[in-house]
Amino acid sequence: MPRIQLPDGTIQDIADGSSALDVARGIGERLANATVAAEIDGVIVDAARPLNEVSDADPIPLKLLTTRDAEAVGVLRHSCAHVMARAVMRLFDGVGLAFGPTTGNGFYYDFDLETPISEEDFPRIEAEMQSIIKDSEPFERFHLDRDEAIELVSGLNQELKAEHIQTGLADHDSLSFYRQGEFVDLCRGPHIPDAGRIKAFKLVSIAGSYWKGDSKNKRLQRLYGTAFFDKKDMKAYLEQVDEAKRRDHRVLGKQHGLFSISSEVGSGLCLWLPKGATVRALLEDFIKQELLKRGYQPVYSPHIGRAELYETSGHFPYYRDSQFAPIFGHPAGQLVDYWKQCLTANEIDEKVENDFLEAAKDIGCPFEDFPKEAGNEEKLAYLSKWEKQQERYLLKPMNCPHHVQMYQAQPRSYRDLPVRLAEFGTVYRHEQSGELNGMLRVRGLTQDDAHLFCTPEQVEQEFKETLDLVKFVLASVGLENYRVQLSLRDPDSDKYVGSEDLWDRAEGTLRKVLQESGLEFTECAGEAAFYGPKADFMVSDAIGREWQLGTVQLDYNLPERFKLEYVGSDNQTHRPVMIHRAPFGSMERFVGMLIEHFAAAFPLWLAPEQIRILNLNDEMLPFCEEVQQTFRQAGFRTSIDRQSANVKKKIRDAQLDLVPYMLVVGPKDKEKGGVSVRDRIEGDLGFMSLDDAVAKLVQERDERTIRQVIKSEVKVFSGGGSEAENEY
Amino acid sequence: MPRIQLPDGTIQDIADGSSALDVARGIGERLANATVAAEIDGVIVDAARPLNEVSDADPIPLKLLTTRDAEAVGVLRHSCAHVMARAVMRLFDGVGLAFGPTTGNGFYYDFDLETPISEEDFPRIEAEMQSIIKDSEPFERFHLDRDEAIELVSGLNQELKAEHIQTGLADHDSLSFYRQGEFVDLCRGPHIPDAGRIKAFKLVSIAGSYWKGDSKNKRLQRLYGTAFFDKKDMKAYLEQVDEAKRRDHRVLGKQHGLFSISSEVGSGLCLWLPKGATVRALLEDFIKQELLKRGYQPVYSPHIGRAELYETSGHFPYYRDSQFAPIFGHPAGQLVDYWKQCLTANEIDEKVENDFLEAAKDIGCPFEDFPKEAGNEEKLAYLSKWEKQQERYLLKPMNCPHHVQMYQAQPRSYRDLPVRLAEFGTVYRHEQSGELNGMLRVRGLTQDDAHLFCTPEQVEQEFKETLDLVKFVLASVGLENYRVQLSLRDPDSDKYVGSEDLWDRAEGTLRKVLQESGLEFTECAGEAAFYGPKADFMVSDAIGREWQLGTVQLDYNLPERFKLEYVGSDNQTHRPVMIHRAPFGSMERFVGMLIEHFAAAFPLWLAPEQIRILNLNDEMLPFCEEVQQTFRQAGFRTSIDRQSANVKKKIRDAQLDLVPYMLVVGPKDKEKGGVSVRDRIEGDLGFMSLDDAVAKLVQERDERTIRQVIKSEVKVFSGGGSEAENEY
Repeated sequence: MPRIQLPDGTIQDIADGSSALDVARGIGERLANATVAAEIDGVIVDAARPLNEVSDADPIPLKLLTTRDAEAVGVLRHSCAHVMARAVMRLFDGVGLAFGPTTGNGFYYDFDLETPISEEDFPRIEAEMQSIIKDSEPFERFHLDRDEAIELVSGLNQELKAEHIQTGLADHDSLSFYRQGEFVDLCRGPHIPDAGRIKAFKLVSIAGSYWKGDSKNKRLQRLYGTAFFDKKDMKAYLEQVDEAKRRDHRVLGKQHGLFSISSEVGSGLCLWLPKGATVRALLEDFIKQELLKRGYQPVYSPHIGRAELYETSGHFPYYRDSQFAPIFGHPAGQLVDYWKQCLTANEIDEKVENDFLEAAKDIGCPFEDFPKEAGNEEKLAYLSKWEKQQERYLLKPMNCPHHVQMYQAQPRSYRDLPVRLAEFGTVYRHEQSGELNGMLRVRGLTQDDAHLFCTPEQVEQEFKETLDLVKFVLASVGLENYRVQLSLRDPDSDKYVGSEDLWDRAEGTLRKVLQESGLEFTECAGEAAFYGPKADFMVSDAIGREWQLGTVQLDYNLPERFKLEYVGSDNQTHRPVMIHRAPFGSMERFVGMLIEHFAAAFPLWLAPEQIRILNLNDEMLPFCEEVQQTFRQAGFRTSIDRQSANVKKKIRDAQLDLVPYMLVVGPKDKEKGGVSVRDRIEGDLGFMSLDDAVAKLVQERDERTIRQVIKSEVKVFSGGGSEAENEY
Repeated sequence: MPRIQLPDGTIQDIADGSSALDVARGIGERLANATVAAEIDGVIVDAARPLNEVSDADPIPLKLLTTRDAEAVGVLRHSCAHVMARAVMRLFDGVGLAFGPTTGNGFYYDFDLETPISEEDFPRIEAEMQSIIKDSEPFERFHLDRDEAIELVSGLNQELKAEHIQTGLADHDSLSFYRQGEFVDLCRGPHIPDAGRIKAFKLVSIAGSYWKGDSKNKRLQRLYGTAFFDKKDMKAYLEQVDEAKRRDHRVLGKQHGLFSISSEVGSGLCLWLPKGATVRALLEDFIKQELLKRGYQPVYSPHIGRAELYETSGHFPYYRDSQFAPIFGHPAGQLVDYWKQCLTANEIDEKVENDFLEAAKDIGCPFEDFPKEAGNEEKLAYLSKWEKQQERYLLKPMNCPHHVQMYQAQPRSYRDLPVRLAEFGTVYRHEQSGELNGMLRVRGLTQDDAHLFCTPEQVEQEFKETLDLVKFVLASVGLENYRVQLSLRDPDSDKYVGSEDLWDRAEGTLRKVLQESGLEFTECAGEAAFYGPKADFMVSDAIGREWQLGTVQLDYNLPERFKLEYVGSDNQTHRPVMIHRAPFGSMERFVGMLIEHFAAAFPLWLAPEQIRILNLNDEMLPFCEEVQQTFRQAGFRTSIDRQSANVKKKIRDAQLDLVPYMLVVGPKDKEKGGVSVRDRIEGDLGFMSLDDAVAKLVQERDERTIRQVIKSEVKVFSGGGSEAENEY
């Protein structure tokens, strides 16, 4: 007889074939109604599946997932995707199904359609979905072997599914399907017990896509939606989406002259206009000062490096798909590069090779001794040797190899360590154009980067200090609401560099420091970089979205690849450990996030224009200039609105321009030698002497006071981390 | 009868066939002995040539060049090159002569030799030269027509000379030669009257070279020498060369950990190590503060841009030889690029073209509709069209096009102007590897760049303010000895952009502002950039070498090419004028120069390590840390020498490390709560209280006091300007 163990430790016998729903029902009907899925050993399964079919553990560790569990929402949304597909198939002819997964905030389904869907179709699709949900039919799981599966999907005219079974799932002997009424879909699951559990849903948008994401394949239509267990949650989410739209940094960036992206310069390449550049420069100066206090040393490195440098670091050609193409010194460089790719992929025959040889000859490379009769390996070696003699540069995709070269520029002793090299290093990565998004996902990004080279014994202290730095930096812009994600290795994988022992020690150290730090943190097994564990700061913004920002990463790989050394107190050479860290992440992403967080209304210390002086009439101008001079002396960025307009209009302009303080100067103010201070948030503060006004503003600026008004507690929508930007 | 006019205005008749020497002799024998050449209308000629053969002006404007005239030294050195060649031909067999020009500091001659010359041969070559000089034979000029000339040099077995007459001088009907005793050389001249005028000379070095500087041609040996009218001058020069060697920034840069160039990263790509980076960051921060005060706005731009951007600006493909190769998105990009080059150069036939087509097909570009039967122009258009549809980026060779895009990011009114956009922009230029020189000539350089967009009426004021800025900036590092070179157009050339009228106005404005500024300035006709006149600061360093640093350039071209506009007070659109300016030039070159200028002993405000605290024994350490804390609070970069060594050794180390101030802490200092201050230059300054010591050092730092010890008055050696870095 199977046994289960509940999270509270209780062990109980269950009947053979019992499901999680049965267990829930045994506890109470209310729990059964709330149960939507089950979690067994970290794997989520249908609440209706026989438990002993899923696990042969004894006892089976069972956690019931109810509508209150965050993990359950994904199950709900995936089921809602099935419901949506079913509705579309009812309403449209010849619907081909592709994939229909969940996303951070909802779900989508990709369709191959005869008649394209438009947003105008949403109401009737939603109505059809509502009617399906009302029927509360169950999601039924069944298995077929390969031939049966292909027969089934072919019978349903689902050619893409048939193709996927034959190619993508070629190594699966048995395949799972889900049936809901007349709708049958190839699907791994899990699903909610029945469609009636969907209490709130909405179609969100429609977009183009390609079969398997490849632009060479068939063009599809992607229908996005979202779903919730509760109408209140959906309302909050949709409000958040609206609020996010109002805060869109691309719109605000244009409106307030913060940054610009020009197709003439290139997609994903940020032009920082004066106001945005001012915010960035203030953040950079702030962190530079802080780094000097903390024993970092500034360095500068070029934005290119020889391809060989990245071969040594392992970034090239491994990451070539997300890098800009190499810059070749020789005209034949690109040809040879392509030739090597063809050879590696074995996509070459004698005729093609002869063409290559001819083309190379024309470009001044006769390659007379090319080993035509030899195997691909020897040919590759020949071409690689030629390449090594040429100049080949890469736009740097990261700063580490350059900093490593600086570490190596002189012999190092344990007494010199830790060496902490810091640079605002701009790196270039060729993100797909469809993935670009204003400043948040770019092709050129400036990391507030540093590399720490330390002894293994120093890792704990250094990690502690970098965490402290990230906390300090986030606090300076009022980001106090965050958690740390500690990414550890997958103990079952062998992709990691370094010994078990090293990893145990490193992970143990990071965990210990995090525990001692009092920071809220979660561990994610399998999320570590291949070169070491890492800690990422997941920061919530003003409207409750979570962003992956600052990162601290241990690295055992690069010191090994570059054979880094220091002489220890034992007079022997040792290998240092590297720590990569970036408190902001990248200036582009951080400032983009700040624009949305503050809705472009920056706090006083960061505002591009801090003070605007408004004169009642032209006679006031000389005194306004005195006032400006006084505030300039105190280091403020000020302007005078010299328009011949009334003060009301000038105030409106300044409010719209999000200037934190307005100083209104009329005859009485002038007479009394002061100004009427107007706070953008609080409104009129009345007359102040110049000394008092300066003192008030200096205090607010120097204490980096944040006076953020709108705060949301919603926490359902992820701003989206960018792993590509985050790994080194 | 010919007449001459002397610089003082005197007009006098001379006999037909009279030479400058004759004129000098008429004035006095001493003048004749001092006269080495003549200048007529800016052209230097032999003192011995009949004046009416050289000029048909009436009167002939004649300036006698004596040993005191700077222009005469070049004539002397060129003659010395002939003397050296004559000596080499006497001592070695089968000597082929190539070219033998003067350089900034001496001369060289390229030889095609059977037996190579080594430095060990210098004494006997110098002895032979001395004996030739002793004979005081005249340099005699004569002319031959082409056939006679070829016959003469062929008879002398001078094959390179024969080739040059046939190719390089193909459009010359008559050719000039100089004879000195048995030595005859094809030569434009001019020369000194006789070899006896050479009072001091020295062979300097030997190097490899190629015929006509092309590495595909014959390899030659280049023998360098120098010569002077006075032994004293040569001694001073050789001392300066020695001093320059001691100050070599490449040696000092390595020794003091300022910068590093790694072959793994790439030639000409500077890695700024912490100490060098500190100096750079201080200079950058200093100028940033100054720019904000002067109404500049900071911007940041990416380091790449689409090739089309540079096609619009005119920098590509015009300057492609000095640029890094384009980064192509498509593998066929480089092939097509090369194909276009072949078509443009007309170096292509049907077979070659078919090979290109085949190669392109293999790289995924079938070009099925390529106009094979059409002319080159149509073919080029076809390929260019294809290229335009691809991604093609360039590493930016200058920042202007990016700043132009920022100007264009919003509509501009005359009220917004001048717009002053400033950026420390790193640009990349592919200098020939032979031309690279530490930080002074690099492939990646960071300009302290800014672009001013102003109305034509504002040019005067803006130019004035930029001059003022450059003066201010140079003064901050104690560079007070400089002149301005005003580069104007060549009135006879048509390579310039913009109307005569525009140029007259622009040149007039620049001249007027310079006159009013009280700056020493010289005008150079024909030295302007094609897009506008410019002013360059030629700065003398501590040992009298002159460097081309800060630059201010007017530009009428880019506003035209990018169709820049602003709305004037007349409500019409107008074209703004652009000013490019960089007070330092580039950070690499400027800091490289500063290293040599200060011999790496930076003044207090720039020193990477400003203060070192030396403890007498370990008991003093806690107090040393207090002292350090006090100076850190005051913003100083300090360290404590914790070695268990005696103070004498610690002082020696600090002196060698060029630390401006040492604070020695012994029991008496500690007891009295102060330190014994040691100045790197002046030595022991005795005991000071902490307050007094801080006050003294703060004053020296904040006033940016320069206490440079070695100053040289020698002014014969040019540090070398780099035009390539200087033009936009």
